[in-house]
Amino acid sequence: MQSNPVITLTTDFGLNDPFVGVMKGAILSINPSANVIDLSHGIASHDIREAAFTLGMNYKFFPERTCHVVVVDPGVGSRRRPLLVVTERQYFIGPDNGVFSYIYKLEARTLQVIHITADHYFLKSKSSTFQGRDVFAPVAAWLSGGKNVQNFGEVITDYLSIDLQIPALGKGAIKGEIIHVDKFGNATTNISQTEIDALISQNPGAPLRVLLAGKEVPMKMYYGEALDKELHSVINSSEYVEFFVNRGSAAQLFNITIGNTVEIQNTP
Amino acid sequence: MQSNPVITLTTDFGLNDPFVGVMKGAILSINPSANVIDLSHGIASHDIREAAFTLGMNYKFFPERTCHVVVVDPGVGSRRRPLLVVTERQYFIGPDNGVFSYIYKLEARTLQVIHITADHYFLKSKSSTFQGRDVFAPVAAWLSGGKNVQNFGEVITDYLSIDLQIPALGKGAIKGEIIHVDKFGNATTNISQTEIDALISQNPGAPLRVLLAGKEVPMKMYYGEALDKELHSVINSSEYVEFFVNRGSAAQLFNITIGNTVEIQNTP
Amino acid sequence: MQSNPVITLTTDFGLNDPFVGVMKGAILSINPSANVIDLSHGIASHDIREAAFTLGMNYKFFPERTCHVVVVDPGVGSRRRPLLVVTERQYFIGPDNGVFSYIYKLEARTLQVIHITADHYFLKSKSSTFQGRDVFAPVAAWLSGGKNVQNFGEVITDYLSIDLQIPALGKGAIKGEIIHVDKFGNATTNISQTEIDALISQNPGAPLRVLLAGKEVPMKMYYGEALDKELHSVINSSEYVEFFVNRGSAAQLFNITIGNTVEIQNTP
Repeated sequence: MQSNPVITLTTDFGLNDPFVGVMKGAILSINPSANVIDLSHGIASHDIREAAFTLGMNYKFFPERTCHVVVVDPGVGSRRRPLLVVTERQYFIGPDNGVFSYIYKLEARTLQVIHITADHYFLKSKSSTFQGRDVFAPVAAWLSGGKNVQNFGEVITDYLSIDLQIPALGKGAIKGEIIHVDKFGNATTNISQTEIDALISQNPGAPLRVLLAGKEVPMKMYYGEALDKELHSVINSSEYVEFFVNRGSAAQLFNITIGNTVEIQNTP
Repeated sequence: MQSNPVITLTTDFGLNDPFVGVMKGAILSINPSANVIDLSHGIASHDIREAAFTLGMNYKFFPERTCHVVVVDPGVGSRRRPLLVVTERQYFIGPDNGVFSYIYKLEARTLQVIHITADHYFLKSKSSTFQGRDVFAPVAAWLSGGKNVQNFGEVITDYLSIDLQIPALGKGAIKGEIIHVDKFGNATTNISQTEIDALISQNPGAPLRVLLAGKEVPMKMYYGEALDKELHSVINSSEYVEFFVNRGSAAQLFNITIGNTVEIQNTP
Repeated sequence: MQSNPVITLTTDFGLNDPFVGVMKGAILSINPSANVIDLSHGIASHDIREAAFTLGMNYKFFPERTCHVVVVDPGVGSRRRPLLVVTERQYFIGPDNGVFSYIYKLEARTLQVIHITADHYFLKSKSSTFQGRDVFAPVAAWLSGGKNVQNFGEVITDYLSIDLQIPALGKGAIKGEIIHVDKFGNATTNISQTEIDALISQNPGAPLRVLLAGKEVPMKMYYGEALDKELHSVINSSEYVEFFVNRGSAAQLFNITIGNTVEIQNTP
C-alpha cells in the first residue's frame, strides 16, 4: 500500500456543477489517503476522441501506480462495460467506449483489460445515471487502497477501440489534420514526431515543408523565436506538429479549426 | 485528531479570481494536513438557494468528520452571524443566511447550531469584505485540527432557514418545478423519490405520468435507454426527477428553464 | 523535510486544457508528498502585470516554506532565464519577466534571486514550449522535497522588474486607476491603505473623498452596509480601495473598466 496514491480524473463534467467534487467525496470516503488530481474536466460533452487524446498525451507524466479515471460516457447506465486497464506502470478506469484507445496502442506490450463486475465495490445506493460517482470513483479508491486487480473482474480481449486517425505516410509526404485548439489558440495536428522521423528517413537531408490548407508555414524551435502576429509551426510539448502565433491566437487570426488539412512534405 | 481531515469548499467565487486559492492558503497555514476539496465554485452569485441545494444533494457522499465550508454570502461583513453546524457525522461552517437549510431538515435529529464568536480563531488581519478567508477558512482549519466544537461559541436555535420549495402532494398528483439546469442541459425538478413514493401509495399500481408544462414526458431508467433527440425523464443520481435528452441538451432543445412547472400524476 | 509541503500554481492556462493537471503529475512524480494548490489559472493570456498583482496580494496567506510557481510566460523557450526567488518565509519559481515584481519590492530585505541553471533537475524529455511542466514544476518538486536552494544555480542581481504603477502622492491628493475587475464586478484600484495613510498624515482630521472619473463615491466599511444598486467604495480584503455595488456588479452597472482614473482627496 502506498502512502499518497494518485488518482486522476478526466471528464466532460466542466467545473460549474458539483459532479467532480462529489466524485472526490466518494473516493475519500473509501481511501482517505488518496491524492485526487484533476487532469481535465474541459472535454467537450460526450467527446470520446478528445478524452482519449487528452489521456494519451499526458498519462506518462504521472507517477508509477497512478490510477487514471475517465468519465466521458454517453452511454452511462446502458450495457457498455466498466473497465479496469492494467499496464506496466499505471491503472486506468472508465467505460468500454474507446476512451483508452491510445493506452491500448502505446501500452500493448503489457496490457491487461478487466471487465469490472465486482459490484460489492460500488456505492450501495448506486444510481443508473452517475457511474462516475457510484462505480468508477469507488473502484479507483479500493484499487489505490491496495485491493488486487484480480478482485475486480475477469480479463477480456474484445474491448472497444476508436480510430485514432494516425495520418498515413505517403511517398515524400504525410497528410494529417487539425485535431485540437487550446486556450491560447494554438492548433495541434495529428502528426507526431514519429511520423516525421519516418518521412525524413525517405529522403534524409531534404528540406521539410509544413503546409496548412495548401500554404507553407515556417517551422520554429519555440514560440519566442517567431515574430508576433505571424503564423508558424513547431513540434509541441506532446511531440505533435502545432500551429501558433507568438503572443496571439493562431486559431483566431488565421481562422484555423478542427478538421483543417495539414501536409508535411519532404522532397529533394 | 485525523490524519487527512477533509474540508470542502462551496462558493459563488468562480475560478477566475484567486479567492478560492487564498482560502486554501489560510486553511493550510493553520492545519497543514487538511485535504481541501472543491465541491463547487459555480454557484450563481449570491444564490443562497442554489448553494443550499448543492450542499444538500452531496454532503452525504463525503467521509465522516468532513467539514463543509459554504461561502455564498451577500451580507458579508454585516451583523449576520457566522455558524458552525454540528451533525452526527459531519460539520458545516458558513453564514447564517439559510445556506444550511437542507442540513437543518435532513439532520434535525442530532443537529446542533453554534454561533461562532471565538474571534481569536479568526485571521488577525481580519478584513470586513472577505470572511471566507478570514473567518470561515480558519475556523474550519482549527476544527479539522482537533479543536472541540464547544470552543467556537454558544448553541443557538434562532438560525435562519429558507423555504426549500418542497412540492405539495395533492390528490393523485404532485406539482413541482425546474430548479436547476446542469452543464449537459439536464433539467432537475424539486420532486424527489420521497414525494413520488408518497404519491404512489395513494393509488398503488396506477400508472405514473410525468408532465412538463402540461405535456407528458416518458420516463426511463437511464440516459442510454432513450432515443437521441427525444425528451425523457429519469430519477437522477440525487433521487430527483430530471428531464434529459440522450447525447443532447434537454434545456436547449426543449427550451426548459428554471421555474417551469412540472406535474406528476398517478390516477387509476 | 516537511511532511506536506505546499506548492501553489498561478498560470494563464485556464482550466479547459490538461496543462495544469499534467504539471501536477510532473510534481508528484518527483515529490509524492507535495500538496499542490491552485492559486489562479484565470490570469489573462500573457498578462505579466495581472500575475504579479495576483501573487503579490495573496502569497502572505500561505504557510511558511510554500513554493509559489508562476507560469505566465510569453517568451517561453527563448533566452529569458528561469528563476528561483528565496525570501525569509517562502520560495517563488518562474520566468525572469517581472512576474515577481511585488515580491522584489515587499521582500527586499531578505531577497535572494537565483538563476536556475541546474538542468539535471528538469524533465529529461524537456520540450521548448512547455517549461511549466518541464522546468518549473520539477524544480518546485525537488525544492519542496528538501533540495537546498544553492543546488539550483547562482545568485543574480540583474533580474527584471515591471513598473508596479504605484500611484504618486501629490499635495492633498492621490491619483490612481482601476487595475482589476473581479467575478462579482468589484473594481479594484492601485491605491492601497499605505498611500491613504500617507495622504491622511498631510492633513490629519480632514475629510477623505474618493472620486471615480471625477465623481465622488461614498466610502463604506463593508459591502452589506451599502444600499443595493448604488456605487460605493471600500478598503478591500487586500487593503486596496475598491468600488462595489451591494448584491450587484459595479463594473456593469456603472461601466467601470481597467484604466479608469481614480482620485482620493484629503483637503481641509
